[in-house]
Amino acid sequence: MPEQPANTAPIHKVVIYGDSFADRRAEIQAALGDAFTVVTIGHGASRTEKESAFADALATIAVRIDADTPIPPSLRLIQVPGIGWDEIDLGHVPSGATVCNVGGHETGVAEYCMAQMLEWCHRLRPAEEGFRRGSWERSSRFGAPPHRELSGATVGIIGFGAIGRVLARQLQGFGVRILAANRSAIPADADVDGRYALADIPVMLRDCDFAVVAIALTPETRGLIGAATLDALGPQGVLVNVARGPVVDETALWDALSGGRIGGAIIDVWYRYPGADDPDLSPAHHPFATLPNIMMTPHLSGWTSGTVARRLSLMTDNIRRAAAGHALVNAVSTPEERKA
Amino acid sequence: MPEQPANTAPIHKVVIYGDSFADRRAEIQAALGDAFTVVTIGHGASRTEKESAFADALATIAVRIDADTPIPPSLRLIQVPGIGWDEIDLGHVPSGATVCNVGGHETGVAEYCMAQMLEWCHRLRPAEEGFRRGSWERSSRFGAPPHRELSGATVGIIGFGAIGRVLARQLQGFGVRILAANRSAIPADADVDGRYALADIPVMLRDCDFAVVAIALTPETRGLIGAATLDALGPQGVLVNVARGPVVDETALWDALSGGRIGGAIIDVWYRYPGADDPDLSPAHHPFATLPNIMMTPHLSGWTSGTVARRLSLMTDNIRRAAAGHALVNAVSTPEERKA
Repeated sequence: MPEQPANTAPIHKVVIYGDSFADRRAEIQAALGDAFTVVTIGHGASRTEKESAFADALATIAVRIDADTPIPPSLRLIQVPGIGWDEIDLGHVPSGATVCNVGGHETGVAEYCMAQMLEWCHRLRPAEEGFRRGSWERSSRFGAPPHRELSGATVGIIGFGAIGRVLARQLQGFGVRILAANRSAIPADADVDGRYALADIPVMLRDCDFAVVAIALTPETRGLIGAATLDALGPQGVLVNVARGPVVDETALWDALSGGRIGGAIIDVWYRYPGADDPDLSPAHHPFATLPNIMMTPHLSGWTSGTVARRLSLMTDNIRRAAAGHALVNAVSTPEERKA
Repeated sequence: MPEQPANTAPIHKVVIYGDSFADRRAEIQAALGDAFTVVTIGHGASRTEKESAFADALATIAVRIDADTPIPPSLRLIQVPGIGWDEIDLGHVPSGATVCNVGGHETGVAEYCMAQMLEWCHRLRPAEEGFRRGSWERSSRFGAPPHRELSGATVGIIGFGAIGRVLARQLQGFGVRILAANRSAIPADADVDGRYALADIPVMLRDCDFAVVAIALTPETRGLIGAATLDALGPQGVLVNVARGPVVDETALWDALSGGRIGGAIIDVWYRYPGADDPDLSPAHHPFATLPNIMMTPHLSGWTSGTVARRLSLMTDNIRRAAAGHALVNAVSTPEERKA
């Protein structure tokens, strides 16, 4: 960092590019302090406006970098404000910049899994709806059959990364058996009762009431969960997907759900994401919303106030590190790697 | 037990009186075996039918005992198939019979609290409803504001009995602070971060995001939670009641909810329970169903398949104890006490 005379203007420019976290500019400015100036610029701005915004910037918080992004050679940090960095075109990243992503969503996603598995057992949504209309039919005092509980179930976690570890910890107090499958070895001190290789997922799922998919989408994991694996889960088993849609083969899932070959599914991640002006809002090529045995939400599981707070803290820490020339956290593409 | 010749008929009669567990007669018979005969008789049967059913019985599974119940002097056990035994008129219990109740619902009730507190934070019910109609408005990809998470919250448990202990254990993995108030001292090894006397509940609730009422209804606890206590919980706090309605003063709860003096309520237990033919189905004297800040269910939290299985096991164990002349479990009224 070059020496500065006292009482100089802020020197490190940070550009929030696009909508994500643009509404948090003031918070980010406050967290970084007077040695930084934080500006926002939209994807739809003109080339001249973008060039002016990015001029001499140290860092940018950006989901997308491409030919339309006038990144200056001064840039040291491209901080993606989430996990996925598939819209960062490395061909347009300047040689001195490191691309970092950020997690912090594990707690929210794991809580989503707990909330939905509990709801699958207790069925409180229809009970509440009926009760508000005056129906006591779900009450034991009116002869209702008992509902299920999570206690006693076996939960298989596919992918034992950050989300899987938090979920296993949350499950600890519930009297369930926890199995986990992972590419690399699962640590000896992990909160699990059984460990499996990815190739043995069908073996694991034969024992499972719930199978939670929490593994990164890579060429290796695309379609990892297909028809044979779903058949191993069986007609009482419930598939939970909080990873990325295509880890589970869409047609195999549709066939298994519509044919009753699995008991149900809890799905937060999809096969189609419409653009803001897209008239077709369907999240998949099959009409999953017509099925009774699916609980479906629009990719929201990790989007909690806790995630935002943790991401703000992790991102501003990284920006300060970039300014100080310190090692960056969560680097996914470094100048050294790209040179090699 | 008198000696019997080999190959004699079953000798110990068990009467399931009323609807509760009547549909489980075959299971109970199978669990008890050939030395018992299990019969059912309804509350509406004639006096003669009831006398015939109860003649020479050893034990009865019954919610209600009153002047209409022809209990024989042979009876040793009145096994209530739940916790509440307020319909057992001790004036009609024969001198040699012990009244026992049965729990086993703690896990289901605690899971209900977890499911509803998570739902309060994540708001998945409206998200799912909207998404099935094609709305992505809750997705971060469409600019949705983040929702809350349970992690980081403070949960106060009022009454640290069986339910409170299970709930505290389930909460362990969620990164929350757990406070508890109880009449007797809370054991040193309990999973709590702070201990309070019942008189200090308002002090405890000032720090709480959620207050879970899980204390037995007694003359001492009726109206335990009134206006001042709810004010201590405050406009962000949420009251959860899984105990009995009248532990929380109804008008104080209505005023606090409708006036926004507490953030909300999650209520499974009520102030009115209509009979099967009652045209007025309202669960309270105030119209709680008209409020947006309440989640309400018809007294179902403990009614799980796990509760039924645990109760069947506990009740048949007690019936075998009665036959063998062994000490009974969960006695709430004994011949010795009633003589004293």
